[in-house]
Amino acid sequence: MSKEDKLSAAQKKHIKKLHQKKYRDEFGEFIVEGIKGAREMLASDWTLVHAIVEEGREGVPGLGQILNDVVHRSVPITYATPKDIKDLQTTDTFPGIQLIVSKKNVQLDKLQRGGPIICLDHVSDPGNLGTIVRTADWFGIKNILLSEGCVDLYSPKVVRSTMGSLFHVNTHQSQDVTEDLGELRGSGYKIYSMTMGGESIQKMQSTGKDIYVFGSESHGVSQSLVEMSDGLYSIPGSGQAESLNVAMAAGIIMSRI
Amino acid sequence: MSKEDKLSAAQKKHIKKLHQKKYRDEFGEFIVEGIKGAREMLASDWTLVHAIVEEGREGVPGLGQILNDVVHRSVPITYATPKDIKDLQTTDTFPGIQLIVSKKNVQLDKLQRGGPIICLDHVSDPGNLGTIVRTADWFGIKNILLSEGCVDLYSPKVVRSTMGSLFHVNTHQSQDVTEDLGELRGSGYKIYSMTMGGESIQKMQSTGKDIYVFGSESHGVSQSLVEMSDGLYSIPGSGQAESLNVAMAAGIIMSRI
Repeated sequence: MSKEDKLSAAQKKHIKKLHQKKYRDEFGEFIVEGIKGAREMLASDWTLVHAIVEEGREGVPGLGQILNDVVHRSVPITYATPKDIKDLQTTDTFPGIQLIVSKKNVQLDKLQRGGPIICLDHVSDPGNLGTIVRTADWFGIKNILLSEGCVDLYSPKVVRSTMGSLFHVNTHQSQDVTEDLGELRGSGYKIYSMTMGGESIQKMQSTGKDIYVFGSESHGVSQSLVEMSDGLYSIPGSGQAESLNVAMAAGIIMSRI
Repeated sequence: MSKEDKLSAAQKKHIKKLHQKKYRDEFGEFIVEGIKGAREMLASDWTLVHAIVEEGREGVPGLGQILNDVVHRSVPITYATPKDIKDLQTTDTFPGIQLIVSKKNVQLDKLQRGGPIICLDHVSDPGNLGTIVRTADWFGIKNILLSEGCVDLYSPKVVRSTMGSLFHVNTHQSQDVTEDLGELRGSGYKIYSMTMGGESIQKMQSTGKDIYVFGSESHGVSQSLVEMSDGLYSIPGSGQAESLNVAMAAGIIMSRI
């Protein structure tokens, strides 16, 4: 390994900044940590910027193939000491590799090219957002629209909990979800919001251009979105629980569409 | 408040021990923290042992009604200083109240008195177990059988993530799940295990005495349980994700039964 392969102070500073949303927004980059995420990233058309490997961890199973793929992309691989890794890692147990990847905000018109759209309104829990992305990927649902006020899709916890599925879906981070939904409605989409006390989802009919809106864990779907909806639905329950987890509700709906 | 209402050193030591599984097993008690959990506990027939309130937090919304209910049960209420609470709390932000509650392991024959049984085999993630309990409660599914090797149902994280639904379901902690399932099968139950590559769940037919088995996040359903199953099923997916989260899989199945 040549001297240039060692982590510089400037690189370290840059990566540490990516732990914070404001710098992920500024630089348009984020961190993918671990073998599974790295493998899915490299199999995708997303843009890789930089790969960081912990010195002495080159033998981690699966890492060799990943480094080959990084080399094929002509992207630099940098080796960091265990001490530096302590500052850079986003998981408690560093899995040997970290990729710096460019964010990819799919434009609204591209979301319209096919299939249903899952719209998340102010979903704030990272695990819920990640699980929804992973479940959408399982069911082959490609399009996800995130309202302003959702947890950052590129936060390490969300990225990790998507288990690599982040790289299989199209996501659009909206600046004004009411406006975006209005635009989609204008082009023929139907909007179905999931609300407590809505009609049973068994009555929900797919038109081929459908948007399913899920609200925040604590406040549900925003009033302005409820008002522009073509239908309000809920998942019938016969027990005593007050609510379903938002990821669970989204997963159950996705299993039916 | 009288002097006896203050937390003693022995009480403090006892409660701190309940943070560990081995003492929860030894004492047969666990901790419920927060208004929502306390409210559901008090509305149930579970046995309350002791209530701990943080001094100066008596004004927390909902707490007054809870303390009334505790008094009606003739159970002691103890006041603890913010300093003591730091040692006792199981959440980052103490919500004002903690209940010490007796564990309740429903016997296997009681699980057989009605409806389907959800069996979890070595499910190790607390959030997953809690979400499954909460979702079962939503769908009115009453019976949960936990294999040896599952995360402790009474760990603070599991209890919290059930959102009070723990008190609405019957759970049996098995010492030998193969034996228990054999016994249930002998009394007429059908066993359906969820495995990768099983038949589509659309082919699954309910008999009224059904057990649905979900495996661990990393290893799936144990071979011995697969072998004694009456059917192997999976949730069809058309995307690229390798797997569904176990709580999600269980929730989707529960939404159909």
